[in-house]
Amino acid sequence: MKFILTGVPGAGKSTICSKLVEKTSDIHIVNYGDMIFEEAKKLYSNIIQAREDTRKLPRKKYKDIQIEAAKKISLIEGNVIIDTHMSLKTPYGFYPGLIPETLHIIQPDGIIILEFNPKDVITRRERDRATGKRLTRDRESEDEIVLHQQVNRMYAISYSAINQCYIKIIDLTWPQEYEFQHTEFAAEKILQLLNFRI
Amino acid sequence: MKFILTGVPGAGKSTICSKLVEKTSDIHIVNYGDMIFEEAKKLYSNIIQAREDTRKLPRKKYKDIQIEAAKKISLIEGNVIIDTHMSLKTPYGFYPGLIPETLHIIQPDGIIILEFNPKDVITRRERDRATGKRLTRDRESEDEIVLHQQVNRMYAISYSAINQCYIKIIDLTWPQEYEFQHTEFAAEKILQLLNFRI
Amino acid sequence: MKFILTGVPGAGKSTICSKLVEKTSDIHIVNYGDMIFEEAKKLYSNIIQAREDTRKLPRKKYKDIQIEAAKKISLIEGNVIIDTHMSLKTPYGFYPGLIPETLHIIQPDGIIILEFNPKDVITRRERDRATGKRLTRDRESEDEIVLHQQVNRMYAISYSAINQCYIKIIDLTWPQEYEFQHTEFAAEKILQLLNFRI
Repeated sequence: MKFILTGVPGAGKSTICSKLVEKTSDIHIVNYGDMIFEEAKKLYSNIIQAREDTRKLPRKKYKDIQIEAAKKISLIEGNVIIDTHMSLKTPYGFYPGLIPETLHIIQPDGIIILEFNPKDVITRRERDRATGKRLTRDRESEDEIVLHQQVNRMYAISYSAINQCYIKIIDLTWPQEYEFQHTEFAAEKILQLLNFRI
Repeated sequence: MKFILTGVPGAGKSTICSKLVEKTSDIHIVNYGDMIFEEAKKLYSNIIQAREDTRKLPRKKYKDIQIEAAKKISLIEGNVIIDTHMSLKTPYGFYPGLIPETLHIIQPDGIIILEFNPKDVITRRERDRATGKRLTRDRESEDEIVLHQQVNRMYAISYSAINQCYIKIIDLTWPQEYEFQHTEFAAEKILQLLNFRI
Repeated sequence: MKFILTGVPGAGKSTICSKLVEKTSDIHIVNYGDMIFEEAKKLYSNIIQAREDTRKLPRKKYKDIQIEAAKKISLIEGNVIIDTHMSLKTPYGFYPGLIPETLHIIQPDGIIILEFNPKDVITRRERDRATGKRLTRDRESEDEIVLHQQVNRMYAISYSAINQCYIKIIDLTWPQEYEFQHTEFAAEKILQLLNFRI
């Protein structure tokens, strides 16, 4: 089974991935952004030094790299979680994280959308900031996070319509009773999906 | 004219179809799920006994059957209403009811989305349950029905963007003054669409 | 850079385009509807007299004309703003303003969505009506304008998913402190997009 795992940045997606690895050995977690960066460095070592540099490539070259990374993912056997973004929020607007061509190559069984309470996202990001992480990113209001999550849902459904796969919304907007309850809950839900044979 | 008619299960779509047949003889109503089931039985008689079994087929085979059923629909002349679902709600998430290929074959003039008041949907489903219908289906909360209707809207618009057709939302969320007022209203709206020459 | 500029009718899109031209000479503003009308008149001079007549053409012919107009736009160099609609609201439902083929030809860098406060839209339309403009158009309620803006967002995201481009939502729902503050604000935002090199 192959699932694309998405959620707004800084909300807890990586923690959920770590929890998944803790719970099962039968899983490969790949970070699509990292793979794109690796491909880009190989092909354009003169331009690409940092992760952000990949976005500076001309659209056609960026697309070719996305496709190369997708081909690598398609070769991984067993359960694969592709950690990526439905859309990137930039000063120039939202930019889709996937393209029909890469979906066609990866042939995911489904897209998992983690939906968080905007208040929780802000708290978590502030904590990261206090410990020196996420320093370069802009602060977002609750409304902006709500909008980004809505936009992500629409992208996910568009991709599902184009390339017929499941859309699983994991709702994490309810108040936690203890720390990492959302992490635990989401990891369990994802395991259930992996154990399902479509 | 060919229209795809959609709405959440157990809300009154079939009743609206019956009303349409009462009002005009110049109409063919086809149930896409039934047609897929018929095709599947013919090709895989060993696996497919019940309607639900079709979803157990491998994705590629399921797709081929969807395409075969779409070809049959494309051959029907005159006014055709294709009774189907924009998305199926499963424990594994929402699954699209159509694919770009089938839309391309059917070439619908439009997609009609019946949108109901979640309270009405729950009441209707409970009544069905009391009379022995829908016993195997899960109960849904109002929020879940709201979400499913939102998701269906997004699928419909994605399909319309891919294959350029009208999207007609028929709003049935207002309170009825008498029984079957929604049925009557929706049937009239659909007749108006059929009489329109695009 | 090429941007598609969209917003519900009668809300102030043309005024924003005029402001853009005032602010920079390095810009071409093309009205996609006008270009489609010109193409249609050339090819079907017997049928097409008024702008509305283009929609009476059979779907295949209308599509060919959309494609011809898109090819012309693709040849314009420099900064291009394509003034058009994400979807047309008709008595038969919403109809998409673009098709995957035309997007593929135009290759826009992004789609700009102007989102207005429904109250402002109604006020502006009434003012137009008082001066003899928009007389043939139906009056819309706030809810209807809200719905049309939501539908437009979904279309924009579907197109972005299909043809990978930015989606920039320019929020103009806040109360103006002086007349044409929204116009000024939107024009500035669009200029920023044009000065950005993707």
